[in-house]
Amino acid sequence: MVTELNVLADFDPKVPEQSSGAEVLLLGNLYPVVQLAVLESMTTKPKLVILDTMNFWMDIAWDNLMKVIAKTDVITINDEEARQLSGEYSLVKAAKKIHNMGPRSVIIKKGEHGALLFHDGKIFAIPALPLEEVFDPTGAGDTFAGGFASYLTKKADFSFESMKTAIIVGSAMASFTVEKFGTERIQNVTKEELDGRIRQFKELTSFESVI
Amino acid sequence: MVTELNVLADFDPKVPEQSSGAEVLLLGNLYPVVQLAVLESMTTKPKLVILDTMNFWMDIAWDNLMKVIAKTDVITINDEEARQLSGEYSLVKAAKKIHNMGPRSVIIKKGEHGALLFHDGKIFAIPALPLEEVFDPTGAGDTFAGGFASYLTKKADFSFESMKTAIIVGSAMASFTVEKFGTERIQNVTKEELDGRIRQFKELTSFESVI
Repeated sequence: MVTELNVLADFDPKVPEQSSGAEVLLLGNLYPVVQLAVLESMTTKPKLVILDTMNFWMDIAWDNLMKVIAKTDVITINDEEARQLSGEYSLVKAAKKIHNMGPRSVIIKKGEHGALLFHDGKIFAIPALPLEEVFDPTGAGDTFAGGFASYLTKKADFSFESMKTAIIVGSAMASFTVEKFGTERIQNVTKEELDGRIRQFKELTSFESVI
Repeated sequence: MVTELNVLADFDPKVPEQSSGAEVLLLGNLYPVVQLAVLESMTTKPKLVILDTMNFWMDIAWDNLMKVIAKTDVITINDEEARQLSGEYSLVKAAKKIHNMGPRSVIIKKGEHGALLFHDGKIFAIPALPLEEVFDPTGAGDTFAGGFASYLTKKADFSFESMKTAIIVGSAMASFTVEKFGTERIQNVTKEELDGRIRQFKELTSFESVI
């Protein structure tokens, strides 16, 4: 059986000095105690803390996970994890409960069905780009989180509008990652290709209003 | 066992004279032979034939279903039915195969995940409105089809843009149906309420482009 003690490995990441004052901190999907240690080693309080986590940590490290979530501004999890974390089937209800745990913004990833952002009582929904084939979904979530965080860092604006665009950028980037194994495709993406994919998202969801 | 013969009931709908020249014909989810009979009893060829069908007819009336599909402009089915009809798991591939059976427009309904429209090589994706609770999903598909068809009839424009808006109208209407049992909620919807729901769809999916 895997318990919390088994994962208390020697991994003790040191935040490089030039990063310890970062305004945006993305805590990758690791043991919550490691995430807390990273958070505490920041020399200034980040303006935005983004947390990526998963069901595994809910199963074995609940109390420590709750401590990290309480210090988080944005959490990204998938739909099943949101249900497990909240005990609610409805994702609207789940997001409300997760807000109460700490994060002002809750991003729920639904794989081929896209993603939802819950923020200050408002909701943004984005479908996934319909693809003929998904070659390898490994790394899609990490690419999404990286694209999301880097857009917000560059923009230095953490409003609902800005987060919506960050989700589009993250989703567009992740759509490349799944096209080949590993990082092969995402390493070679040009600015033009990324812009094209963002334009596809715009076209995919835009419609004339009737009212 | 249910076979095609068992459903050859006495139901033989007569198209009222004032409707037999309709420009838009919506064939509800019935036995394909009945749908064919309705189609043939039209005095003028409709400009747009919309077909609603389901897995049951694929199981027991495949050949007749194929005959109706061949005469259809727009087909609405759910994701599992699209996979069964096409033998393809990818909905993009499924839609291509269904186009080849006849319909220029393929609408794939994904329940709580929204819907996709495939039309002339273009794709439109709409999420479902995130709801706290779904009271009773019965009739949602019929309400969607009715709202979709009535918008197109009024607009008399069957372009991709027009169909996208029709999908929004149908989805907005269906979102009322699921709020109460039967037709209770949808019977009492006001124009203002419908407009409000359409506005919600717009807000739900709109974002500033970064490029």
